[in-house]
Amino acid sequence: MYRPEIKVVDCTIRDGGLMNDSHFSLETVREVYKAICASGVDYVELGYRNSKEQFSPAEFGPWRFCDEDQLRRAVDGIDGGTTKIAIMQDAHKAVPEDIIPAEESVVSLIRIATYVKDVDKAIRLANNATDKGYDCTINIMAISREGAPFLDEALRQIEQETKALAVYVVDSYGALYSEEVHFLVEKYQMYVKTKEVGGHFHNAQQLAFANTIEAIIKGANFLDGTLLGLGRGAGNCPLELLLGFLKNPKFRIRPLLEGIQKAILPLQETMAWGYHIPYMVAGMLNQHPREAMAWMTGDDHRDFVAFYDRVTEEFDE
Amino acid sequence: MYRPEIKVVDCTIRDGGLMNDSHFSLETVREVYKAICASGVDYVELGYRNSKEQFSPAEFGPWRFCDEDQLRRAVDGIDGGTTKIAIMQDAHKAVPEDIIPAEESVVSLIRIATYVKDVDKAIRLANNATDKGYDCTINIMAISREGAPFLDEALRQIEQETKALAVYVVDSYGALYSEEVHFLVEKYQMYVKTKEVGGHFHNAQQLAFANTIEAIIKGANFLDGTLLGLGRGAGNCPLELLLGFLKNPKFRIRPLLEGIQKAILPLQETMAWGYHIPYMVAGMLNQHPREAMAWMTGDDHRDFVAFYDRVTEEFDE
Repeated sequence: MYRPEIKVVDCTIRDGGLMNDSHFSLETVREVYKAICASGVDYVELGYRNSKEQFSPAEFGPWRFCDEDQLRRAVDGIDGGTTKIAIMQDAHKAVPEDIIPAEESVVSLIRIATYVKDVDKAIRLANNATDKGYDCTINIMAISREGAPFLDEALRQIEQETKALAVYVVDSYGALYSEEVHFLVEKYQMYVKTKEVGGHFHNAQQLAFANTIEAIIKGANFLDGTLLGLGRGAGNCPLELLLGFLKNPKFRIRPLLEGIQKAILPLQETMAWGYHIPYMVAGMLNQHPREAMAWMTGDDHRDFVAFYDRVTEEFDE
Repeated sequence: MYRPEIKVVDCTIRDGGLMNDSHFSLETVREVYKAICASGVDYVELGYRNSKEQFSPAEFGPWRFCDEDQLRRAVDGIDGGTTKIAIMQDAHKAVPEDIIPAEESVVSLIRIATYVKDVDKAIRLANNATDKGYDCTINIMAISREGAPFLDEALRQIEQETKALAVYVVDSYGALYSEEVHFLVEKYQMYVKTKEVGGHFHNAQQLAFANTIEAIIKGANFLDGTLLGLGRGAGNCPLELLLGFLKNPKFRIRPLLEGIQKAILPLQETMAWGYHIPYMVAGMLNQHPREAMAWMTGDDHRDFVAFYDRVTEEFDE
């Protein structure tokens, strides 16, 4: 019933960090790490390793930089099981010099997030990771806005010029419907013959889990999820749902539920991810969630009609 | 881009009534009615017409019975546009005598909800509706627990013995994945040659909207949704998402958002529908949400692990 090739990546802290400028307490990160390792999930992504030139450490929390000693504080004394540690670099906001040799690091996997226009930067960072002894993936963001021929060219380049384990379809806006997921996974497979296809979906239209399933059906083998769907805007594919769908006997759901109730549920008091109409409207219109996120922090955040009027007016321009 | 045969049914008040014993204020129902009519949605279901022998009017609100004069109070003075009014009868909890002739009623469509075991009762109520001048549908509940050969026999009977407009796949437990939706819609289509197939999906696993899309792709033409997904347990397919997917130019989303912010959002203070881990666990285990609903009202409702242990223990028996 299950496909052993499938790898699951938890990105609770990394993607959730887009909602709180990566200001998670060390205790929260340790609880998440413990839950993911106990559940048998393949990778846990603990944040970004982005440049301190581009993000001020005075403004952003430690999980935007993932200094090696900070990562060690997060995992120290916890049984990691078979779970490997991942971090992310943004192609246009990170530098190769911040990556130390793999043998000196607790990190196994470096994921490079990129827009199609930045694919050459992404390839440089991917090869930097490979050269220093890490596995890597390349995650193409905002895919619902990317079209041929540049996407095709980027996929061809990644296939030829990198040793990435996987190339991801990243639906940053939560705009994709299942037929588009099918189309994109098949397109990736046309170009990416020696690597896996990955899927990372946002939940603006409550389709993150469903689109993950559809990517799996089409053959994607790297899948992302987060505890209780924590992530930017409406959030991500809930990891607990994904493990329920996958039938791999090595996965355990109970530790995830424990992690959720201890570490994630309390965050709901200060972080408004999940299904909210402004996020839904942004997803439906194939827009970045940033305006909806700003709206959600304002006094009028329950005036959905005003938000709709505003963004559809801009949309018409 | 759009399929003109598709009919959309709003069931906010009917299905939402399973969360509050149908105790909506008249003002709430009027706001919902106004929003649905202004949006161009085909049908608005205002509640059940179930038996007062089986539900005490002292305990249950007026939308469990939908007396004709109550329905008239709900719609009086509001422009109904092209939207028709529906009510539901439960095959095992309603009687034919409660249906007055269609020409004396504001109701156009009577939907009969049934389990496979009660299909003969459902057929009796469906034909009662037809004989009295209404359109009708038959909605087969808990479909994730129904298997061959009784389901097949029920479908054959409904096809031969009724004039129902549509026969519904009703995923009461929110347990179905897309491949099961495909399978069921195709099975229905094998038997139901002269009627449409309908889809009504619950959101325990965040798949209600996605499964509605999958039913549409397979040819289902009667689709249910509710404002902000209000409904039993995790709720239903959000109507605002469904209209965003369908491309029929007669639909308008803005009135739905207005109805949501006026009438539905305030209900969140007293009604806990939406994605919550106990509902998710019940859906994943293909169980009725009643235990999860009870858990959600208890003091320990944030102790997900305790709930999980309890239901998986029972599940193992």
